[in-house]
Amino acid sequence: MSSLLTIAHGSRRAASNDEVRQLADAVRAQPGQAYAHVETAFLELAEPSIPDGLVALVGKGATEIVAFPYFLAAGTHVAQDIPDAIAEFTAKHPEVAVRLTQHLGASAVLPAAILNVAG
Amino acid sequence: MSSLLTIAHGSRRAASNDEVRQLADAVRAQPGQAYAHVETAFLELAEPSIPDGLVALVGKGATEIVAFPYFLAAGTHVAQDIPDAIAEFTAKHPEVAVRLTQHLGASAVLPAAILNVAG
Repeated sequence: MSSLLTIAHGSRRAASNDEVRQLADAVRAQPGQAYAHVETAFLELAEPSIPDGLVALVGKGATEIVAFPYFLAAGTHVAQDIPDAIAEFTAKHPEVAVRLTQHLGASAVLPAAILNVAG
Repeated sequence: MSSLLTIAHGSRRAASNDEVRQLADAVRAQPGQAYAHVETAFLELAEPSIPDGLVALVGKGATEIVAFPYFLAAGTHVAQDIPDAIAEFTAKHPEVAVRLTQHLGASAVLPAAILNVAG
């Protein structure tokens, strides 16, 4: 059973964190989407943490998790901090397959999406 | 003649700013896109600034500019700083129509785009 974890930076502004959670709600509600669960985790400043978010998905029955960095730039967070957090989880839960995707900013679908936003 | 200005936060990391510029290149290269020019500007920490980016588009002949905030969250930058910077430009160039779009994080196309990234 495959689930999606959207990983955001996290903010001191509760409204920003809620915006990310609402995005996960919208992803979950997309017609035809096949993930059993779509949840959100935060690198810092908000809960759940990445390991806690992964553990929560396992608690819901996930055996495969797609981890999606909701980041625009390939900085240290994307290149190191997120992989480290996933590795921390995987060391304790080797039975769960976690696949880390590209970050949003590197997505091949982003240019077309931007044209849709801009109109 | 309508042009698109992608507005990013700007980073101390040159590679992050280059990533945004490359995204503008990719938007410009999208098949069927109708903007005469697609350029990038930065709120801070990188050049050009938002007013300078708008002026540069006018110099290329733009009479309508779509300003797209390449931001994930609707914080102060999106709600106030970017509109203020555009207002600074518009006060000097009332003949140029600048339309400010939703920020990326609020885009209705983002949930589907995320499912495409995550696979």
